[in-house]
Amino acid sequence: MAAKSAIKRFDMTGKSALVVGAAGTFGRAAAFALGGAGCRLTVADKGVEAVADDLKADGIDATLVELWPDSGANAEVIVRAAARAHGRLDAVFIALGTNDVTFVEDQSEEGWRKVMDANLDSYWRVCRAAGRQFAAQRPGDDRYKIAVASSTRGKLGHPSGYAAYCASKSGLDGMVRALAGEWGTKNVNINGIGPTVFRSPVSEWMFEENDPGKLVRENMLERIPIGRLGDVDDLMGGLIYLLSPASDFMTGQTIYIDGGYTAI
Amino acid sequence: MAAKSAIKRFDMTGKSALVVGAAGTFGRAAAFALGGAGCRLTVADKGVEAVADDLKADGIDATLVELWPDSGANAEVIVRAAARAHGRLDAVFIALGTNDVTFVEDQSEEGWRKVMDANLDSYWRVCRAAGRQFAAQRPGDDRYKIAVASSTRGKLGHPSGYAAYCASKSGLDGMVRALAGEWGTKNVNINGIGPTVFRSPVSEWMFEENDPGKLVRENMLERIPIGRLGDVDDLMGGLIYLLSPASDFMTGQTIYIDGGYTAI
Amino acid sequence: MAAKSAIKRFDMTGKSALVVGAAGTFGRAAAFALGGAGCRLTVADKGVEAVADDLKADGIDATLVELWPDSGANAEVIVRAAARAHGRLDAVFIALGTNDVTFVEDQSEEGWRKVMDANLDSYWRVCRAAGRQFAAQRPGDDRYKIAVASSTRGKLGHPSGYAAYCASKSGLDGMVRALAGEWGTKNVNINGIGPTVFRSPVSEWMFEENDPGKLVRENMLERIPIGRLGDVDDLMGGLIYLLSPASDFMTGQTIYIDGGYTAI
Amino acid sequence: MAAKSAIKRFDMTGKSALVVGAAGTFGRAAAFALGGAGCRLTVADKGVEAVADDLKADGIDATLVELWPDSGANAEVIVRAAARAHGRLDAVFIALGTNDVTFVEDQSEEGWRKVMDANLDSYWRVCRAAGRQFAAQRPGDDRYKIAVASSTRGKLGHPSGYAAYCASKSGLDGMVRALAGEWGTKNVNINGIGPTVFRSPVSEWMFEENDPGKLVRENMLERIPIGRLGDVDDLMGGLIYLLSPASDFMTGQTIYIDGGYTAI
Repeated sequence: MAAKSAIKRFDMTGKSALVVGAAGTFGRAAAFALGGAGCRLTVADKGVEAVADDLKADGIDATLVELWPDSGANAEVIVRAAARAHGRLDAVFIALGTNDVTFVEDQSEEGWRKVMDANLDSYWRVCRAAGRQFAAQRPGDDRYKIAVASSTRGKLGHPSGYAAYCASKSGLDGMVRALAGEWGTKNVNINGIGPTVFRSPVSEWMFEENDPGKLVRENMLERIPIGRLGDVDDLMGGLIYLLSPASDFMTGQTIYIDGGYTAI
Repeated sequence: MAAKSAIKRFDMTGKSALVVGAAGTFGRAAAFALGGAGCRLTVADKGVEAVADDLKADGIDATLVELWPDSGANAEVIVRAAARAHGRLDAVFIALGTNDVTFVEDQSEEGWRKVMDANLDSYWRVCRAAGRQFAAQRPGDDRYKIAVASSTRGKLGHPSGYAAYCASKSGLDGMVRALAGEWGTKNVNINGIGPTVFRSPVSEWMFEENDPGKLVRENMLERIPIGRLGDVDDLMGGLIYLLSPASDFMTGQTIYIDGGYTAI
Repeated sequence: MAAKSAIKRFDMTGKSALVVGAAGTFGRAAAFALGGAGCRLTVADKGVEAVADDLKADGIDATLVELWPDSGANAEVIVRAAARAHGRLDAVFIALGTNDVTFVEDQSEEGWRKVMDANLDSYWRVCRAAGRQFAAQRPGDDRYKIAVASSTRGKLGHPSGYAAYCASKSGLDGMVRALAGEWGTKNVNINGIGPTVFRSPVSEWMFEENDPGKLVRENMLERIPIGRLGDVDDLMGGLIYLLSPASDFMTGQTIYIDGGYTAI
Repeated sequence: MAAKSAIKRFDMTGKSALVVGAAGTFGRAAAFALGGAGCRLTVADKGVEAVADDLKADGIDATLVELWPDSGANAEVIVRAAARAHGRLDAVFIALGTNDVTFVEDQSEEGWRKVMDANLDSYWRVCRAAGRQFAAQRPGDDRYKIAVASSTRGKLGHPSGYAAYCASKSGLDGMVRALAGEWGTKNVNINGIGPTVFRSPVSEWMFEENDPGKLVRENMLERIPIGRLGDVDDLMGGLIYLLSPASDFMTGQTIYIDGGYTAI
């Protein structure tokens, strides 16, 4: 009975969902998935107009915010735009990220800070704005949801030049745990998704038939039981799970959708 | 486009799904959820007939196997019954469990072994039989799936009398990681679900208004951000996620659906 | 002042220490290390006499128990022998282990059980006996200590044939957490040491210049930042730390001394 | 033989050790412990002169640097001061930290950044400077060591106002793993120590007999198997272990010395 309807708990029809970082590969796929799942959509990013056009071509309307949450004010604008356009906010996915691949001895303070700001501080800004928005609106039957783009690098280090990246993603997991603690009785759930490498403009080189792509890929594949690198579509099931009512009792977790990379 | 269909990846229509331990609270709810999600169902347990009757009353047909996997032979019979009834096997959920609450100094070898056999060895037997079945049949488009009932006690110890229980659930998580490693290239995924206390005949006392139930519950609630103990229906979204094509790139993980218990 | 004496907290002079599994590589090294650290030593294992002779040649006296804890009774005999010989028991190190490398589909129940009994049940038996002994004797100034030989395989799966091994070592970590919970107020600490591969008769093949040793080793070394496989002496510092008063506030943990294998 | 000398591996006589954050409770205790263990000591912090006087009264000479690593340049000055004073640098302990306890909705960007800068960026600055120093000097027989003050809050969230703190400490653990990966073949080990609450001016209120201290303490004690809050001296054994040659094969780990808090 209750259980019979488990499948219906994945339905997101009519939810107001915001994707921050929608011009990136992960965010863009999320916008399509959430739009396809029936959400009323808001997409935010620099250069997000092209994404909105593609969504439109697929029959999905989206509210645009041409901003990146590089300040608290911008994060507020983004969140309020979603709430204003759709009368409320139900779900947020944040997929911002950058890297500065360099051994620590050679890394500049600017390089370190650039990664920390994009991968951690900006998530915090959006979470703060979303938390304020959630607190201001009347709860419905379902819990509010935030999902963030974490990484297997939040759990594991790396041998060459990822100190800032690993610190930022681990830090993000820690923030998720803390906000889960704060928000549990405030009707808000927050969880992370940790992918391994998936195909994107940034990782395209790892999918090539020449070295170094081939060599690095083959080394990674030795540790991925499923035997291939990721594809962003692999992550959409987990994303819908984490943002829909299906996960109403799950919070403070990071789930790894990584072909088994972190398991062995 | 691909992403647009994310929601369809949760559909299990026509999948042959087996629930081992279907007479228990978790297994029984899983049978309803999987039947409701369109699976062709096989339920195994001692005393499973009553469950089948209730499923029937809800319009769900299920093949019955009146057995517990307390031997390799029984596990084989269970798995083959599912495969024979529905022509193949696609998904397995194992929810067996017992406890022997006693401080280690007072625990008997029988008590320890009883827990290890029910909570770990029997899972291994079903996994072995399912692995053999999967290897014998022709793969379809989707990956085969196994989910197991783990526990927050696989991640955390306990102050009073849970040494066997904790060892068995931690051991199960380790087995999941190893089988994910072995099966990655064999088209099989295996993951665990880790609940906190949910209402069942075994835990009923913790939901009462009198001590010790009240006291123990209130202590637990201090650590559960969402502010209540679990309900087995809370777990069904995660179960569908882990057994449906939506999680085809996820393996070797244990996800905690625990109101945030393990997060703080 | 207090702090100034931190180094003295590693001193184990006069402590009654028991090594169970002293004929194996890890146990044997532990016996030398604990004897060298001033402990009054008891060594238990099948075939332990040769170890005792070698200890003697190094100036270390040890009480012998020619038994393996394959039953509760044997575990009791082992622990009581140590307590009787030295008037009390202060520290226990358990280093028993075996493997049955085979894919799960091909593994026999006997193979599975052999691993679980040696790597988990026997540890439980010794812990139970030690717990009883500790409860029966008058506490001194320092806490009682148990350390167990865990493995990186308790944290990570493996792609080929380690399901039982991984389950047993994960299970051991879970037991450690539970017993830490039970024993915290009973003056007993318990922790695990998780090595990666170290040189032993069992792993000797991995140190050879020919394949498959060379190939497997080189693959492993890609994941070990320090750039070499382990040596049992690498583990002795951690062992002394965990068994001496230096770790009086640490319990329920497994520390990985693995060249960084689990870190990346 | 080799093993017999395990206890000697804790000896730090003549090592050049630097404590950054030596005016705080953890750093100050570390300075006494490392001085007592025979190190040639450098202590850095704002207000570190009083510590140096107390060390002197205890017979321990220390080089002073009256600086906090709030810039890359300051971190370089600190590290070079240690190297210049003692001809080289062997071991570094970093114990900086602050908090900004506030629910995320009420936290200012300044509050968030203050915590991230003190608890994470400044550690990175010292690590970078130390890494450069290590690279510039000729290795001795032992590996270089860095230990950092992590926290159980790097592993666990918190229900009220610790989002920045948790993120910073988790982030630190991630940085430790990444630098372990980078430095494994460069003769440098880095690990973290994760305490629970220990007595300090900041936590003094939690040790009082009145509420809220009493209430918060009693709630925490329910989860600490050893049954008391920490004392900074509890951490000195682990610190010596991580900074001495005894841990030469351990890197990228965070060890929890927390009375069992994270185990149950």
